[in-house]
Amino acid sequence: MSTPETLEVRLGERSYPIHIGSGLLARPELYAPHLAGGRAALVTNVTVAPLYADRVEAALAAAGGHPFRVVLPDGETHKNWENLDRLHGALLAERADRRTLVVALGGGVVGDIAGFAAATYQRGVACLQVPTTLLAQVDSSVGGKTAINHPLGKNMIGAFHQPRAVLADTDTLATLPQREYAAGLAEVAKYGAIRDAAFLDWIESNAERLVARDPDALRHAISRSCALKAAIVAEDEREEGVRALLNFGHTFGHAIESATGYGSWLHGEAVAAGMVLAARLSARLQRIEVAQADRLERLLARLGLPVKPPPLAVERWLEFMGRDKKNREGRITFVLLDALGSASVVRDTPEAPVRELLARA
Amino acid sequence: MSTPETLEVRLGERSYPIHIGSGLLARPELYAPHLAGGRAALVTNVTVAPLYADRVEAALAAAGGHPFRVVLPDGETHKNWENLDRLHGALLAERADRRTLVVALGGGVVGDIAGFAAATYQRGVACLQVPTTLLAQVDSSVGGKTAINHPLGKNMIGAFHQPRAVLADTDTLATLPQREYAAGLAEVAKYGAIRDAAFLDWIESNAERLVARDPDALRHAISRSCALKAAIVAEDEREEGVRALLNFGHTFGHAIESATGYGSWLHGEAVAAGMVLAARLSARLQRIEVAQADRLERLLARLGLPVKPPPLAVERWLEFMGRDKKNREGRITFVLLDALGSASVVRDTPEAPVRELLARA
Repeated sequence: MSTPETLEVRLGERSYPIHIGSGLLARPELYAPHLAGGRAALVTNVTVAPLYADRVEAALAAAGGHPFRVVLPDGETHKNWENLDRLHGALLAERADRRTLVVALGGGVVGDIAGFAAATYQRGVACLQVPTTLLAQVDSSVGGKTAINHPLGKNMIGAFHQPRAVLADTDTLATLPQREYAAGLAEVAKYGAIRDAAFLDWIESNAERLVARDPDALRHAISRSCALKAAIVAEDEREEGVRALLNFGHTFGHAIESATGYGSWLHGEAVAAGMVLAARLSARLQRIEVAQADRLERLLARLGLPVKPPPLAVERWLEFMGRDKKNREGRITFVLLDALGSASVVRDTPEAPVRELLARA
Repeated sequence: MSTPETLEVRLGERSYPIHIGSGLLARPELYAPHLAGGRAALVTNVTVAPLYADRVEAALAAAGGHPFRVVLPDGETHKNWENLDRLHGALLAERADRRTLVVALGGGVVGDIAGFAAATYQRGVACLQVPTTLLAQVDSSVGGKTAINHPLGKNMIGAFHQPRAVLADTDTLATLPQREYAAGLAEVAKYGAIRDAAFLDWIESNAERLVARDPDALRHAISRSCALKAAIVAEDEREEGVRALLNFGHTFGHAIESATGYGSWLHGEAVAAGMVLAARLSARLQRIEVAQADRLERLLARLGLPVKPPPLAVERWLEFMGRDKKNREGRITFVLLDALGSASVVRDTPEAPVRELLARA
């Protein structure tokens, strides 16, 4: 165990720490401050439970807590009403009260659904995010977005509910399947692309180390990603402005996920292909050079990510993108690049270049 | 139309007005400030729609809005997942975006479920509460509590989501069935009992006028109730302290509703019988005189309310009350009277007098 690094998400009375490091799952002192009522609902899934649930429960017990476990099926297809209801039912069956702590142990799906259950159980209980995937550690566990999917659109039902703390134990990344690991690197690259050209350069220079899961490279990537995200969330908690930039690649990416059925493309994979499309659209609209879009595509390919979308009719693309949460008055909102390292939310994109791009995609 | 009276719920940047008066439904200027995106989802039920939906839609259109209507079945039994999902589906089918306004037109059930849909649609959209029952006007539309029921407990799933404004049009009370009207008077009496002895005296002196729906008496009752509630909510938005006093009678009342199946007892009826039990428990614990409990019971009976609970085994009572949201560490929390006009949250009530009371109830 090394000393964990701690960042802060500054949100006034809702501020909270992000702890990043090795061996964190087993540290009782990281759980203890959040066990107001003693009880803790450990929410996880069938894949993560055998790996880490005992370790977390032991730490919760050592911290004076009384944990009980709720195990969900694994995968994005299960981030739905049925499993949310199951979670609520389990909390009620255990007579969880308003001081019960929900501990979300797993990837983005577990974090989203457990976070939303915490947001809505008895009108809101405290939540601890314990992300075990790279994507969840660098992105979804930070910032308080919680949600479930609706058959008509991804993450359409949800709430803003900030966690009390985030525990990103880098040891958990060792067991991550290659595809899931690469999917997390997509979001790491995203931060560079929209906000930090120097970080993007660093990712390019360290792509092989990242793919090989070099601990030092990984820790820097997680730390820098969380710092960039924390700053954006502190500036715009409810996505009324700058936070929307974090959706770079997500307008196209969500459409890929919806159209192919949740789960066949991983979220990070869909975002990778979506970022390439968004960069190409930026180039078509002459916001960046084609060479810059090429550079981003090459980097994502080196990180082991898909850079071409699945075949989809233009009308299907537009139908799914028409349901994006960023849209207003029926117009699709895009996050476009102004340079590698800088992006804008664009609400008045003409439809013709979008159609041309998608017809060729 | 008379000039509406306007109170304010003071919650910093989430502050909002409560407009009370005659003819408000038809006033475009009360809707206009909240139509950021132009679109409005008018959520109502099969009973209220034929009476008032056209009027509200006309006012929304005159204010420059583009309303669409979602009509739910009527009754507490429908405040569940299925209808929430139906609401979300309707919003998605209409491509409602984050700037769409949800207008909740109806009683407490419509306000609770439409408010919760607004709280969770795309992580939160604006909501206008337009209560058409006395209970909703004096209580449920004010303060931002939204919820649906779970088979294991009432209002167990929900969120705090303050409305942008409350429009309490007193004209709508004329069409209210007698039972529903009396149910609203139960909450009016509650404010007096827990917080305002002078108001309780006034209710006693004006009971016949209230039962006869005298407009001046009614308006005073609504206005005073809203003012008392607004002050409590401003002091304690998320029910961490004083707001719990508003649950006077509700611990027993929710158990009555759960045990008899939602809908057979109206909420206000269950609260009336519950307030009598809470007053009797207060007397048993020597917090008030038996004569004061008698006085409250007589007043509620004069207001046309049931003052005896349905027959229920003691264990059933305890089972249902054991699930109350106010509870901590498995102990039932009660709101008890210290006098008529003053109440406390009590967490350490011994079980024996509760059992004795319920065995005789």
